[in-house]
Amino acid sequence: MSNVSFRRRHKIHFSECDPAGIVFYPQYFVLFNDLIETWIDELLPSGYHGVIVERRIGLPTVHLEVDFKAVSRMGDQVWLSLEVVRKGERSLTLAWQCAGVDGDVRMVATQVIVTTSLDTHRSVVIPEDLRAAIEREGSGARVPV
Amino acid sequence: MSNVSFRRRHKIHFSECDPAGIVFYPQYFVLFNDLIETWIDELLPSGYHGVIVERRIGLPTVHLEVDFKAVSRMGDQVWLSLEVVRKGERSLTLAWQCAGVDGDVRMVATQVIVTTSLDTHRSVVIPEDLRAAIEREGSGARVPV
Amino acid sequence: MSNVSFRRRHKIHFSECDPAGIVFYPQYFVLFNDLIETWIDELLPSGYHGVIVERRIGLPTVHLEVDFKAVSRMGDQVWLSLEVVRKGERSLTLAWQCAGVDGDVRMVATQVIVTTSLDTHRSVVIPEDLRAAIEREGSGARVPV
Amino acid sequence: MSNVSFRRRHKIHFSECDPAGIVFYPQYFVLFNDLIETWIDELLPSGYHGVIVERRIGLPTVHLEVDFKAVSRMGDQVWLSLEVVRKGERSLTLAWQCAGVDGDVRMVATQVIVTTSLDTHRSVVIPEDLRAAIEREGSGARVPV
Repeated sequence: MSNVSFRRRHKIHFSECDPAGIVFYPQYFVLFNDLIETWIDELLPSGYHGVIVERRIGLPTVHLEVDFKAVSRMGDQVWLSLEVVRKGERSLTLAWQCAGVDGDVRMVATQVIVTTSLDTHRSVVIPEDLRAAIEREGSGARVPV
Repeated sequence: MSNVSFRRRHKIHFSECDPAGIVFYPQYFVLFNDLIETWIDELLPSGYHGVIVERRIGLPTVHLEVDFKAVSRMGDQVWLSLEVVRKGERSLTLAWQCAGVDGDVRMVATQVIVTTSLDTHRSVVIPEDLRAAIEREGSGARVPV
Repeated sequence: MSNVSFRRRHKIHFSECDPAGIVFYPQYFVLFNDLIETWIDELLPSGYHGVIVERRIGLPTVHLEVDFKAVSRMGDQVWLSLEVVRKGERSLTLAWQCAGVDGDVRMVATQVIVTTSLDTHRSVVIPEDLRAAIEREGSGARVPV
Repeated sequence: MSNVSFRRRHKIHFSECDPAGIVFYPQYFVLFNDLIETWIDELLPSGYHGVIVERRIGLPTVHLEVDFKAVSRMGDQVWLSLEVVRKGERSLTLAWQCAGVDGDVRMVATQVIVTTSLDTHRSVVIPEDLRAAIEREGSGARVPV
């Protein structure tokens, strides 16, 4: 697995900000959920939607550790990035980062997600094609951070 | 003002859907708020952020009429578009549309927004550069709907 | 059907407000969705959850008309109320109001919801027990507006 | 500081759930933000709103550790609770818990919040009346967990 991250540029929207004019922190988790969705869309032909709807496999978060280091303001241009730092049989550990375009880090996090059956909410083995795609592509991007 | 619309392609995210697997309808209003922000970012050099933060001018919605015609499901590719249908001294009337990539319309709406002072929450005249940009660009796009 | 409304008091949360310090308008639709859920919880023993999950009946919005008359600020105490103004075979028309505790109206809306099958997303007849409960209780509250 | 927690009962709303019919995890952070707001409303006569708007003091989160242990489904009745576990000069460490009414724990978290100036986004000393209220009331509730 190559040491690269999957990243997308994002402009902080009005709708993501609180009365202090900065990102309302729960919105970061929505942004990274959307980023993971986009990452899996690129890894698998049937996409995130195929995993959830067709195979009935969920990707719930079981553990999160987050450090908020600086605020992001409405209108800021940021990079949202993720990297696979551990690949278990039934879980993935991802490192997240939100940084300004000048490289100043606003947030870092470690997230553990588990692959589960959406019918029983119990863990299942990571689908073979997803595992293979992660091994082949690293975190899926061609851009070293 | 030319008869064109400003539009963006969007993939319906997991985070935008409800337990029925379709867009939770309040999320449409977030999507269109973000679309208006992107539109004004293209019309003005200082962007939406400049209007809100630097000039302290708000763009609250005072009237909305919405018809939901068909559901949008997680993973659907849609076009979100807006068009200026009336330009008052202190208000703009926008027509919105969300349609699938095959042209099937899921939602149409008419929104009236007013330019206000964020200090008094009273209406103010539309800033001259914004008015001029709208007259010059129509809704800002080059793509006829 | 008696001419009463179902209402709940609500304090405007920080999480519902935008960088202008006032309710971000899409949040009103979340608040009223939650209000309808609470109303149906009071009308039926199996509650809103029973309608959605057990009977697989959805209550999507097909039409909305909204007037925003005054802003609601963080910390404001408001009344959120709804009233059934028309009862069709497969649809309900509700009138919403958000008013301050002094009676000043901030938002009024008319919403048409349709009862649908969550499997086909087609309309179905309003469940008999829900229809009967609405006829018996009016909008379910004992408090004239 | 007594060893009690501040807690509120909550019914999981449709609006808080994802296409899997369970709480969309970013919504937990909104629920606990609202809980903290309610807690400070009870601790101080001028409330959370007074801290944010009148004194221009923010309460941003700088660190979070979260374990998700079991899912919460639409319609579930849960207890949301918080407890002050450490009181610094410029920060508070809170322990959160979301548990079903039968005591089964769905989520636990540790959150560090810092008191900041909303003008400079730099840390400030915890306001004296807030510190005193926390010392007097513990986490503000009379109900031992």
